[in-house]
Amino acid sequence: MVRMALGVSYDGRPWFGWQTQPNGQTVQDQLEAALKQFVGVAVPTICAGRTDTGVHATAQVVHFDVPVQRSNVSWVRGLNSLLPDSIAIQWACPVVPEFHARFSALSRSYTYLLINTPVRQPLWAGRAGWCFRPLDLERMQQASKVLIGEHDFSSFRSSQCQAATPIRTMHEIDIRRDGDLVLIHLKANAFLHHMVRNIVGELVLLGQGKTDIAHFERIFKALDRTQAAPTYSASGLYLTDVQYPESLLSKPAMTNTPILQL
Amino acid sequence: MVRMALGVSYDGRPWFGWQTQPNGQTVQDQLEAALKQFVGVAVPTICAGRTDTGVHATAQVVHFDVPVQRSNVSWVRGLNSLLPDSIAIQWACPVVPEFHARFSALSRSYTYLLINTPVRQPLWAGRAGWCFRPLDLERMQQASKVLIGEHDFSSFRSSQCQAATPIRTMHEIDIRRDGDLVLIHLKANAFLHHMVRNIVGELVLLGQGKTDIAHFERIFKALDRTQAAPTYSASGLYLTDVQYPESLLSKPAMTNTPILQL
Repeated sequence: MVRMALGVSYDGRPWFGWQTQPNGQTVQDQLEAALKQFVGVAVPTICAGRTDTGVHATAQVVHFDVPVQRSNVSWVRGLNSLLPDSIAIQWACPVVPEFHARFSALSRSYTYLLINTPVRQPLWAGRAGWCFRPLDLERMQQASKVLIGEHDFSSFRSSQCQAATPIRTMHEIDIRRDGDLVLIHLKANAFLHHMVRNIVGELVLLGQGKTDIAHFERIFKALDRTQAAPTYSASGLYLTDVQYPESLLSKPAMTNTPILQL
Repeated sequence: MVRMALGVSYDGRPWFGWQTQPNGQTVQDQLEAALKQFVGVAVPTICAGRTDTGVHATAQVVHFDVPVQRSNVSWVRGLNSLLPDSIAIQWACPVVPEFHARFSALSRSYTYLLINTPVRQPLWAGRAGWCFRPLDLERMQQASKVLIGEHDFSSFRSSQCQAATPIRTMHEIDIRRDGDLVLIHLKANAFLHHMVRNIVGELVLLGQGKTDIAHFERIFKALDRTQAAPTYSASGLYLTDVQYPESLLSKPAMTNTPILQL
């Protein structure tokens, strides 16, 4: 058996998220169908971050064990020829047996894209959240500082979340504008269910001037999901990086992730 | 009767181009259906550039005559509430009766987006052409100079083209890279059918080193479509600007065209 790791990017719009479902309309189902066709046996896969319906990825990481050896480029080209247009392998490499896409990950990065224009932008439909009111990014950046470090993120945790604990460590939050786009970049050891979209919901209220920084901190410290803003749309959410110890995985040099050159 | 002008953006993927068809699956059909619902009578429309199946627009311009008066913002919001996600009005304003979206236009600008990565990028599927070989943009820019000015563009003209003459005046061609994206920007008084995609096809061959600049010039001067490269994919083509005399239309301040902030 060889343990392989893959970098996978996908447009989340056509899929009911990562995780396999009986209807087969998930990224995992599509990838496992391609793998089965490519290697001839059923190959279960494990991913770094189980994205929800409509959520995108430029850099999902997946591992699996297979009884066959192929060159890295064969894995990429072979699987891509079998995958739909909305999913593609970006790199492939064998890894040590200790590597685990989910449990070995040191951090995940997500980027939330917001299109901040008075009218909706059809070329970003399903690919960015939309906020038609002007946003004060400095306020948003300022408020977000309270999230950095190890905290109980219960206020931003979906009621469906199955994690054992609401404690997570936020490494970075960076909010910047590029033309009409606002990019909210978050890096943490891991994220709770809907955590990014719930944080974005509260940050957008603040950026519009509907709340203030003291309110944001109060909501965060209340540890009560019902007090915080609604979950923001899945459309703007991208899984953009997963980091591992160098000893377990040194990812092949990737291309830029074009969605983020915006 | 009031003559109105609209700025329209659309994702071309779901549509069989601009021009009305019996199946109703065109941008014009969708816009005219929304207009009919909004004003209560059938309203024929005329556009600046009749884009093909799968071609996008950030700044299509349309005019029509209607027996009703509405505020500019009502036109935008009212029509957008009736249009599908993939089409949206960006601005609206009344114009003088002499204004004609097609015949008054001084120039059209198109941008062709190429994603230049070794593997395909699902987040750009249908939104950019793909070239997996490295491209030498300096060679492409150099060769494109021969197209500037008034010329017979027969070598880059579709056999289906219905224009009265193959003579067009190319004002500008600018080719630049932004990360993994290559942007080919062309501005001319008007374009023949498939002209941009045929030029891009020949430029991509050149950029890959499969032909040289002398060959590019020879092909252009041969005035023979059969000698030039195949038409490049519709996916990467965007109508990005239309200019008019100030006396006929001073377009409302538009938002940036986010697709091009890449």
